[in-house]
Amino acid sequence: MYSFLNDYSEGAHPKIMEALMETNDAQSVGYGMDEYCRLACDAIYKRLGTMAPDVHFLVGGTQTNLTFISHCLKDYQAVIACDDGHINVHETGAVESSGHKILTKEHQYGKVTVEMIEDIMKNHEDEHKVQPKMVYISQTTEWGTYYTLSQLEDIYAYCQENDLYLFMDGARLGSSTVLEDAPSMKQIAQNVDAFYIGGTKMGALFGEALVICNDDLKDGFRYQLKNKGAMLAKGRLLGVQFYTLLENDLYEEIGIYENRMADKLRTALKEKYPLYLPSSTNQIFVDIPNNDLKEIEKEFMVTHMKTLDKTRTRIRMVTSWATDEKQVDRFIELINSI
Amino acid sequence: MYSFLNDYSEGAHPKIMEALMETNDAQSVGYGMDEYCRLACDAIYKRLGTMAPDVHFLVGGTQTNLTFISHCLKDYQAVIACDDGHINVHETGAVESSGHKILTKEHQYGKVTVEMIEDIMKNHEDEHKVQPKMVYISQTTEWGTYYTLSQLEDIYAYCQENDLYLFMDGARLGSSTVLEDAPSMKQIAQNVDAFYIGGTKMGALFGEALVICNDDLKDGFRYQLKNKGAMLAKGRLLGVQFYTLLENDLYEEIGIYENRMADKLRTALKEKYPLYLPSSTNQIFVDIPNNDLKEIEKEFMVTHMKTLDKTRTRIRMVTSWATDEKQVDRFIELINSI
Amino acid sequence: MYSFLNDYSEGAHPKIMEALMETNDAQSVGYGMDEYCRLACDAIYKRLGTMAPDVHFLVGGTQTNLTFISHCLKDYQAVIACDDGHINVHETGAVESSGHKILTKEHQYGKVTVEMIEDIMKNHEDEHKVQPKMVYISQTTEWGTYYTLSQLEDIYAYCQENDLYLFMDGARLGSSTVLEDAPSMKQIAQNVDAFYIGGTKMGALFGEALVICNDDLKDGFRYQLKNKGAMLAKGRLLGVQFYTLLENDLYEEIGIYENRMADKLRTALKEKYPLYLPSSTNQIFVDIPNNDLKEIEKEFMVTHMKTLDKTRTRIRMVTSWATDEKQVDRFIELINSI
Amino acid sequence: MYSFLNDYSEGAHPKIMEALMETNDAQSVGYGMDEYCRLACDAIYKRLGTMAPDVHFLVGGTQTNLTFISHCLKDYQAVIACDDGHINVHETGAVESSGHKILTKEHQYGKVTVEMIEDIMKNHEDEHKVQPKMVYISQTTEWGTYYTLSQLEDIYAYCQENDLYLFMDGARLGSSTVLEDAPSMKQIAQNVDAFYIGGTKMGALFGEALVICNDDLKDGFRYQLKNKGAMLAKGRLLGVQFYTLLENDLYEEIGIYENRMADKLRTALKEKYPLYLPSSTNQIFVDIPNNDLKEIEKEFMVTHMKTLDKTRTRIRMVTSWATDEKQVDRFIELINSI
Repeated sequence: MYSFLNDYSEGAHPKIMEALMETNDAQSVGYGMDEYCRLACDAIYKRLGTMAPDVHFLVGGTQTNLTFISHCLKDYQAVIACDDGHINVHETGAVESSGHKILTKEHQYGKVTVEMIEDIMKNHEDEHKVQPKMVYISQTTEWGTYYTLSQLEDIYAYCQENDLYLFMDGARLGSSTVLEDAPSMKQIAQNVDAFYIGGTKMGALFGEALVICNDDLKDGFRYQLKNKGAMLAKGRLLGVQFYTLLENDLYEEIGIYENRMADKLRTALKEKYPLYLPSSTNQIFVDIPNNDLKEIEKEFMVTHMKTLDKTRTRIRMVTSWATDEKQVDRFIELINSI
Repeated sequence: MYSFLNDYSEGAHPKIMEALMETNDAQSVGYGMDEYCRLACDAIYKRLGTMAPDVHFLVGGTQTNLTFISHCLKDYQAVIACDDGHINVHETGAVESSGHKILTKEHQYGKVTVEMIEDIMKNHEDEHKVQPKMVYISQTTEWGTYYTLSQLEDIYAYCQENDLYLFMDGARLGSSTVLEDAPSMKQIAQNVDAFYIGGTKMGALFGEALVICNDDLKDGFRYQLKNKGAMLAKGRLLGVQFYTLLENDLYEEIGIYENRMADKLRTALKEKYPLYLPSSTNQIFVDIPNNDLKEIEKEFMVTHMKTLDKTRTRIRMVTSWATDEKQVDRFIELINSI
Repeated sequence: MYSFLNDYSEGAHPKIMEALMETNDAQSVGYGMDEYCRLACDAIYKRLGTMAPDVHFLVGGTQTNLTFISHCLKDYQAVIACDDGHINVHETGAVESSGHKILTKEHQYGKVTVEMIEDIMKNHEDEHKVQPKMVYISQTTEWGTYYTLSQLEDIYAYCQENDLYLFMDGARLGSSTVLEDAPSMKQIAQNVDAFYIGGTKMGALFGEALVICNDDLKDGFRYQLKNKGAMLAKGRLLGVQFYTLLENDLYEEIGIYENRMADKLRTALKEKYPLYLPSSTNQIFVDIPNNDLKEIEKEFMVTHMKTLDKTRTRIRMVTSWATDEKQVDRFIELINSI
Repeated sequence: MYSFLNDYSEGAHPKIMEALMETNDAQSVGYGMDEYCRLACDAIYKRLGTMAPDVHFLVGGTQTNLTFISHCLKDYQAVIACDDGHINVHETGAVESSGHKILTKEHQYGKVTVEMIEDIMKNHEDEHKVQPKMVYISQTTEWGTYYTLSQLEDIYAYCQENDLYLFMDGARLGSSTVLEDAPSMKQIAQNVDAFYIGGTKMGALFGEALVICNDDLKDGFRYQLKNKGAMLAKGRLLGVQFYTLLENDLYEEIGIYENRMADKLRTALKEKYPLYLPSSTNQIFVDIPNNDLKEIEKEFMVTHMKTLDKTRTRIRMVTSWATDEKQVDRFIELINSI
């Protein structure tokens, strides 16, 4: 059985494992103050064209979201997200448990829109309701879609006018930054208050690089890291991994590869089945007759998203740096034969 | 200008003020361990026909909700409410700030239904999402409607089958218990895990009497009260007030009076304007042409709920123990003259 | 049995009850936006000689402490107190439950000293420990002592140099402001970032008036109030009470009276027994042979603080606006007869 | 410069790196439900001689402490520790930030004693103070000492009689379990409610294996993990590492090796300088004249714990699986030559 369940089914990209092996014996100081973290940080600064932001390395996505969001908000402040936002659905109440309400509206193609934010703002005007203070978006979204540069700019402009922080969850950032109309890392840094460069789903063993662009949000964040149990003792492991991903173009190579694998699958799938939402990144959502699905699942693992009716199911397939192209080809062969 | 804005515009019912005056000089121990609290407690036990529940007196509604909900839930557990639920909209994130997500569906006539709860339960099945553990309902609801005994029984039956606590916010309880098909206090106690008997909106200066029926939720609640800043030093004040409200039928007299005042207004209003939702308690929601509203607001204060379109507004009017019947008559005269 | 257990054994000062009766029927808006609160606020401004501070009215002391402290501190910031500080011992973990560590040193005559703060600061220098950010003191202290103006000035000077907020819990403030070398309310406001004027223990039914002097701490506090369940629906009750206490000199009269009663007791007691700590406010701590205590407790209730050895007990006695001078005289007569 | 700063200066033990390389390409499910975690779990069960406990793998120590402690305690409950306990000093308020007070007494040789716990219990008897509910101990302690089996049994007996949970932080567990009078893992499991087997400081890249022995504390812990951002996506990494450490005797070999290296250093050091506390594990605390320290620090990095006076400093040296015996020999040669 070959798994298309997600992009964290394997260990790490071979170059990362190699770098971890090579640096294994060296001594370094702990907690992210080491030379490898400095190098990784420099690699990020180079891409952003500025050394102004603060960069911190954390272990996982939920951890990054809860640690940063609770760092930014006061007790009575809330974060705006779309109803399908990762923080709203798939983090077991982590943001609320750290004290903050999530205000939601129904997603538009997986995305938050300026209209949504505006609706929420109009409905929260005094101290008897929470005060919206941050907008949370994901690049790419839960549905494999992405914000174009112009969409991001519009949201950021609205946020700036309305005293809202804009925070981008980039767990799968590399699947978008290689697309033409999506913002580059540099453009993202110019259009958010903070974002993170995902590692876990982009070829690392684990790790997310949080980039804090807004000066007001920088102070004390290392305290916050420790306070939330998010400061890794051997911080060097994060430095080594992100340096390997970002010193040259490994991060983009991974993005291009996983998108190419997804495109092959998508092209074949859409000949036979309706795709759900026009995704062009490494996640595919497709509505499949249960009889066909039964055939597929003799050889492949896919995620069931939703029972559409008695005869059809919406499934998700995900590609990654580790996706075996031979398995992709076999999958295509299989569905063409059904 | 006479106010129909809410049911907490005045001080307290004269009998309560009298009782506070009479007992003012007596010495008592603090923190709710006094004789007055014991008497109030007994009055509640008498109504419920049992001494099994634990009773605690708190100062306000938001305080009661946040203190009790956070007492019952573990970090990863959530409370189910309808989208218009007081805890979801009008408590400035108090429940989330004490650590818990609120899961919502659109209200049905202001109410939670078994179907709603079921939908949410089906969608929360593993540890990657919060665990729903409590259902929160209000009697009466934000829209002045109420749960009938049979509706309450159905919800409680579902909760018991599905290991969910049922908690009823009774801020305006007395406006329902005097209605024929609404559950009595005794019936409520048999069909919830906990509920509170509202005082603030029912003629007290302040105060809510929390009744914990489920044995599993009783342990340590006095610690929880103190921990949340909800234990009043002169707890006697709550005892005196609830004893006055509940030793005879003052609580019901107030409910009957405020409903009768509301019925008079409702009868007159619905001759001319469409009522919003079929309320029969002390809150009235009605859609009024702006020109008429302008006339009304020369003499009366009412709450604007929603701008329906350029010419009409949905307003709320609330009656209470303190509502002046002459002002009600004048209001009716006024709208009949417009 | 007459109780010297505490200063909240009775209801409220007759003038407060009278004012509550007089204003009972008037309609007002809720949540502290009413005319009575405005008047109480003005009375405070007049005493302080400035309208610069923000004033908020809360119901109780623990509530005020937890609501304000959590308003000021970030997740990783701590508050410094002495080991016997009310927030450290008698609030059931309220400050920690709202997310913050309390750093303590052994009290000096019930008080925090600059040396203590300095010791703690020297020991907290990086992100592996909490960041001290606030100093909490009580006027009067748990042991009935008080900060002189010069002591307060020294602490505030240190706090300002070291980027620490200074917050004064004034639950029994009125017992100190009438003493010659203790700071007046005006002097306090000039030497803290925030303080509260206690009502519960100074003749009100309940209530504490929080005065926020530091501009940086003002923003959003009404949201914080609601978020912590600390915004009273009938906020007018707080306004009426504090206006009554502060419009003329009732607050000071109460302070003078309770101190005079305490002085009478103290003078008699110290003839026979060693006083613990040189208090001159409304609390008395005295070490009494158990045989004598047995006699006393046939007529009076006092608090047992500590079993000193097999034959002696440290007790506390408290006076208030309500203390009956005849009972004081009888107490003196009794101990003189033992 | 060679570092004796701590036991997490290098990457991982070569056997762990090898295992990670070997398993890197295999696909597995996420979040700790994989085959490697099952194997690691079995290895733990084998050592404990029972499959009754629940085992969970987390990334770091502070994370494990905050996630588990907040899982066990209600809002108003506190954890007892000694003043130097890791949770009390070196976790930036993580436990308080998740809502719980830490009650402390001065450590005895780095340890908590039954007398300490008893003192705290006697002083916490009602709802005006927090309710102590858990005792936190570390094996080995912050000062390199350890609890003997008999000491552990005494503490556990007291905890069971007094309805307290006993939780052992085993960040450096392997440095004790190889000592004769210290409890084995099996004995620990019989004498605590929960403990963790440290990985980060025992040769892993990262990771702590939490063993929950008390049935009452098991329910819902995977939800708690996710809620606190402590559930690793590629949970397999923890499984592979702990399986490698525990399938045979690697964990004990590392303990023996680091203790042997420490013993060599200790033997040489105590010839010349007074040791602080009688440690026999992988941490050494020794008071050194500043002149000698200056010589040492030309070649070696050590931690300054405390300035004793103008001429002497207390330092800490730590050994680990990675300690180079040649460097140990050189260090000994150096101090003998001073």
